[in-house]
Amino acid sequence: MTLPEISGAKHGLDEELDTQDIPDLPSGPLDEYRKQASFNWKEMMRFMEGEEIIAFKQLIFRTLENDPLFARQPGEDVLVEKKRELTFRRCKQLFKYNFLTRAEMMQSPWKVTVLNDCLGMYDWSVGAKFFLNKAMFGGTVANSGSQRHLKFVQDIEDMKTFGCFALTELSHGSNTRAMRTTAKYDPKTQEFVINSPDFEAAKFWVGNLGKTATHAVVYAQLYTPDGVCHGLHSFVVQVRDPKTLLAMPGVMVGDMGKKLGQNGLDNGFAVFHNVRIPRENLLNKTGDVTPDGLYVTPFKDPNKRFGASLGALSGGRVSITRMAVVNLKLALIVAVRFSATRRQFGPKEDVEIPILDYQLQQWRLIPYLAAIYALDFFSKSFYKNFVEFQIGLFMKDNSDRQAELGREIHAISCSSKPLGSWTAQRGIQECREACGGHGFLSMNRLGDIRDDSDPNCTYEGDNNVLLQQTSNYLLSLLQHKQQAKGRIESPLETVNFLDDWKRILESRFTAGSVEECMNSAVPLAAYKWLVCFLLGESQRKLTQQKALGLGDFEARSNSQVYYCRSLAIAYIEHTVLQRFHDLTEDVETPAGLRSVLRRLCALYGLWTLTNHMAILYQGGYLSGKEPADFIQNAVLALCGQLKDDAVALVDVIAPPDFILNSPIGKADGELYKNLWATVLQGKNVLERPSWWAEFCSDKPKVGSLRAKL
Amino acid sequence: MTLPEISGAKHGLDEELDTQDIPDLPSGPLDEYRKQASFNWKEMMRFMEGEEIIAFKQLIFRTLENDPLFARQPGEDVLVEKKRELTFRRCKQLFKYNFLTRAEMMQSPWKVTVLNDCLGMYDWSVGAKFFLNKAMFGGTVANSGSQRHLKFVQDIEDMKTFGCFALTELSHGSNTRAMRTTAKYDPKTQEFVINSPDFEAAKFWVGNLGKTATHAVVYAQLYTPDGVCHGLHSFVVQVRDPKTLLAMPGVMVGDMGKKLGQNGLDNGFAVFHNVRIPRENLLNKTGDVTPDGLYVTPFKDPNKRFGASLGALSGGRVSITRMAVVNLKLALIVAVRFSATRRQFGPKEDVEIPILDYQLQQWRLIPYLAAIYALDFFSKSFYKNFVEFQIGLFMKDNSDRQAELGREIHAISCSSKPLGSWTAQRGIQECREACGGHGFLSMNRLGDIRDDSDPNCTYEGDNNVLLQQTSNYLLSLLQHKQQAKGRIESPLETVNFLDDWKRILESRFTAGSVEECMNSAVPLAAYKWLVCFLLGESQRKLTQQKALGLGDFEARSNSQVYYCRSLAIAYIEHTVLQRFHDLTEDVETPAGLRSVLRRLCALYGLWTLTNHMAILYQGGYLSGKEPADFIQNAVLALCGQLKDDAVALVDVIAPPDFILNSPIGKADGELYKNLWATVLQGKNVLERPSWWAEFCSDKPKVGSLRAKL
Repeated sequence: MTLPEISGAKHGLDEELDTQDIPDLPSGPLDEYRKQASFNWKEMMRFMEGEEIIAFKQLIFRTLENDPLFARQPGEDVLVEKKRELTFRRCKQLFKYNFLTRAEMMQSPWKVTVLNDCLGMYDWSVGAKFFLNKAMFGGTVANSGSQRHLKFVQDIEDMKTFGCFALTELSHGSNTRAMRTTAKYDPKTQEFVINSPDFEAAKFWVGNLGKTATHAVVYAQLYTPDGVCHGLHSFVVQVRDPKTLLAMPGVMVGDMGKKLGQNGLDNGFAVFHNVRIPRENLLNKTGDVTPDGLYVTPFKDPNKRFGASLGALSGGRVSITRMAVVNLKLALIVAVRFSATRRQFGPKEDVEIPILDYQLQQWRLIPYLAAIYALDFFSKSFYKNFVEFQIGLFMKDNSDRQAELGREIHAISCSSKPLGSWTAQRGIQECREACGGHGFLSMNRLGDIRDDSDPNCTYEGDNNVLLQQTSNYLLSLLQHKQQAKGRIESPLETVNFLDDWKRILESRFTAGSVEECMNSAVPLAAYKWLVCFLLGESQRKLTQQKALGLGDFEARSNSQVYYCRSLAIAYIEHTVLQRFHDLTEDVETPAGLRSVLRRLCALYGLWTLTNHMAILYQGGYLSGKEPADFIQNAVLALCGQLKDDAVALVDVIAPPDFILNSPIGKADGELYKNLWATVLQGKNVLERPSWWAEFCSDKPKVGSLRAKL
Repeated sequence: MTLPEISGAKHGLDEELDTQDIPDLPSGPLDEYRKQASFNWKEMMRFMEGEEIIAFKQLIFRTLENDPLFARQPGEDVLVEKKRELTFRRCKQLFKYNFLTRAEMMQSPWKVTVLNDCLGMYDWSVGAKFFLNKAMFGGTVANSGSQRHLKFVQDIEDMKTFGCFALTELSHGSNTRAMRTTAKYDPKTQEFVINSPDFEAAKFWVGNLGKTATHAVVYAQLYTPDGVCHGLHSFVVQVRDPKTLLAMPGVMVGDMGKKLGQNGLDNGFAVFHNVRIPRENLLNKTGDVTPDGLYVTPFKDPNKRFGASLGALSGGRVSITRMAVVNLKLALIVAVRFSATRRQFGPKEDVEIPILDYQLQQWRLIPYLAAIYALDFFSKSFYKNFVEFQIGLFMKDNSDRQAELGREIHAISCSSKPLGSWTAQRGIQECREACGGHGFLSMNRLGDIRDDSDPNCTYEGDNNVLLQQTSNYLLSLLQHKQQAKGRIESPLETVNFLDDWKRILESRFTAGSVEECMNSAVPLAAYKWLVCFLLGESQRKLTQQKALGLGDFEARSNSQVYYCRSLAIAYIEHTVLQRFHDLTEDVETPAGLRSVLRRLCALYGLWTLTNHMAILYQGGYLSGKEPADFIQNAVLALCGQLKDDAVALVDVIAPPDFILNSPIGKADGELYKNLWATVLQGKNVLERPSWWAEFCSDKPKVGSLRAKL
């Protein structure tokens, strides 16, 4: 598999295509670095995206830039209330632009992600508001409901109504099964009666519910008239009157207030008091209630039913993996361009050098640049896997392969979301610090990028909780094999190497020089050993805990730190590295790009591996002083080589200046001119404060209130 | 040395003192955990603070809580302009309260830090605004000037004027020597003429300059009429008219706009165009100009003069080390109380357990709690060292010891600031994530704590740049010894063990069980080896780089990553651990507290050591599988033991609820009641949005703008 297949680009045609469609970047202080690049940045962009996607992105970016409704000033200070209004208006404008029709989405599902990427690069709140309505509400209704629910989907298409997805409650998030909202069926009126037993069961954190939503998919415990609880089901509940935006009787709905980021999105809460909805509003794919109150379901096992009803959530983690990479891109574009133009100190008096020329600055930033390329390729290829899985669901594929693919995708997404969001979070913070004081100025956007990226660590499953799903998957595969039930293999082949685990555990680090280490095959081999080692150690720890008399719950709890958790992280890092490695070895990867891609791949692998060096020594994969020296020196050598490519590498992934919205990150590299101009464009920047008289004429009497102390 | 000496508390009297002055905490869901504590939290508070400081803190906290000017709502949404106004008014109120008279400060310098701690716990902007005027402006004028400048200090005492400290420029921060503002002496009028050669030399990032300051200490290159530049000197420059708060002629002064945090503080910029100031406004301690334009200085070496003139900055890092710990405290109080009351999942159906009972959650939070205690004790003892040094300066102590003390304090502060600020930054982020979605709600304050703590990594010297100062110090000591010039020793004895470095390098890890590792002596011994090893490796790397023909600048640059940088971090971690270890061994430490303090100390040491495990293996200090297993299991065992003390440990360091200002962190532990109440108290929380009609009646025509694309 090569990546451009997703985007629809055709290999071999690149040279024939008119290259004028990618505009040149403005000349300026960054030219010096751009000239040093070892590759053509436009060729890289075409390879990564394909002409069609490049054109689609340019269309979106240009449209936003030309629409005054999307105008903004870097670092402007806007109240949350105003942010929500602006985001609503911009979201509404997206309906008018209709960048992707339903038919276009079906034809090129990847474009949905590209649209989300582009909106997110502008402001995540806009994309979130748009897609929570369309995908989370509309998608869930379509997937979990049946023919009778189509009107709910149609009504959101032109904003006749606006939807949201209400699962979590004030006192429950991770433990979805424990939601306490109830839906009791009343056969007399053929209605469900929705109730929040108390305020701790208020639906909470629901995006779009704060100010906008008229309808919600509400998850509630379904009770039939015989008093039997059939577990969590989803219902469409009208929460506001679309004609007035006032709350429906019995619904207390409101705005949760300010968040750390994404404040354009109105997250809200709802408490239900005997709210009656028609029987048909139950989304009945996994279970239904007959008019006279009998529960019917195609599932015999309630656990399976529950799993299937939450299936609608699985796509979220695939998206978040991608969103995290986009945020990391934004931050690195700013930090690399800043570092290439900011000069401080130098070997000679009076000549200062760009801070990117310092090895320390390279080591702080360039591995994250490598991570961007690794995770970008990964998230694209994984999206393709996910689309394949979705098509299987749609076609009602009941094969073993489809079931196995589902398990594998679950295991990957439950670790790729943590890896992506944590890498982004740490990388953005490093960029903030690497830009010094200027990174702390809001107008340069690193704060917003960090704050908007932060919740990726939490929603759709807390990272640490999710990782347990991945390690459980791996441990079950090992157990399966040990019970002599065949090979370890999976549809996407991410676990196939584990079948060879005994041989791999006997392997050792063999590279004999720094140069030899500068090849992604070296960290890749180390990762295979690492995953096998941690898998064995995790199993041993679990067994040991159970031998102490602990139950399954406690044994698992006590095997997370240093064992299962590390296992899940190593597994996903190996998967990401393997895919990137394969790409760099692919004969279809253009020759002019292979060298830089190989360096990025080797750096990513070696750099992430340095987090696991202690285990590599502990388990005997490494021994003596040399291996760590080799690996560390290889990291530094690769950073040094990639330093000359760094500016071109961010040019490839950079949106237009208007979208990036960061004076120190502008493409012309005129760091100080851009920063200074933006400072002077600020509000009341040179004016004296409104409270000047309180300073000038009303002087405090020192200690006058001390007597009161 | 034991810590209470600083605070003035007397040992042995504790039992006699009336203990009613520390109010009990409200009963509630946290009781369960509080009952499990192995120690008396009030005894710990008295031991750490002393009665006098406890009373002083209570006075400040109570005063702020009772003053409506300090009233606020958790998570309220306030424009930057309004924040600056509120902070100005609160700062002015501090003049009226005058919590510390000059005499009280002299008598108990530690109280200055306590006051800053208390104000910071409320809101860092208030403390920053207050102390930038008093300490950074007033202190610098007093320390760098002479008798003739006393009026500038007097004028700020009652806010007749307001001061700021203007060193950094738009294009220069770390490289202080490269500032380009000029001060040319004009003997005709006996004035200095201050100029910014261009906007890149605008003074930038100056706290208080944005809206308030009337006077600034401006650092500029001093030129005598003969055209000779005498390097950077500081001048008092009036920037605004105190009667109108309007800019003085020739001064363009303004507000930099929104920052990531501390937005109550008005950071600003200034550009000078032929601004004339009296000759006397030169702060002349290190150099002066005679009326007819001759430069006179007591320093022969301009480098020494430069160092002395920047001496005023050294206290900043001591303060920041402390400020970072205070922020970490705030975050841990919130996260620990939340984790002790939030329940999610459990071993049995229908019974959920507090998330603090999970080993993973313990491992995420409790090591940071240990770090708080370690760094709190360290910052107090280090402050005492700094005060001793300041007294020496004041007494014009010219002894070798005083000079050595200055070098050592410089080396410590250049690494304790990075250690403190990074530990806080990572810990706060971990707390944010550990509180899940609720941690992402502004009202719970973790975002503000993170944002206000973040610049500690940057100002008063970028962390990575500062660490080089520390490693340079250590390398120079080793070189000194190798040239057979005597022992390695220093006034504060933080480097004395290095004298024994050959023997230490031959030592090996010998603990034979998990239990044996649960003692701070184990990580302490490992740290001694680690610092010695990294010192040798750093020297080897530097020598190797120079052998390749690199100059001093490049050789140092290329020896930071993995070598000098790690050395500086290991050195300060060792220092912090050693001091905490000594305290737990001190016979004066109350018997009832020693056990919990020893656990905290061992945990801190082992936990920070796990970051260096690869080096310990690489260098042969550890070998085989067991040592890492022992250390990891000891970390987990200590977390498990300290789990029962965690709530009491945060009770010790917690300010009143009003100051903490976080519903989920309140002392009564009524997590959901407090959160829900605060949500409902929000502005317009249940109201429909002002733009409701735009949703209800003005529907977008889907695709209507698509034609324009």
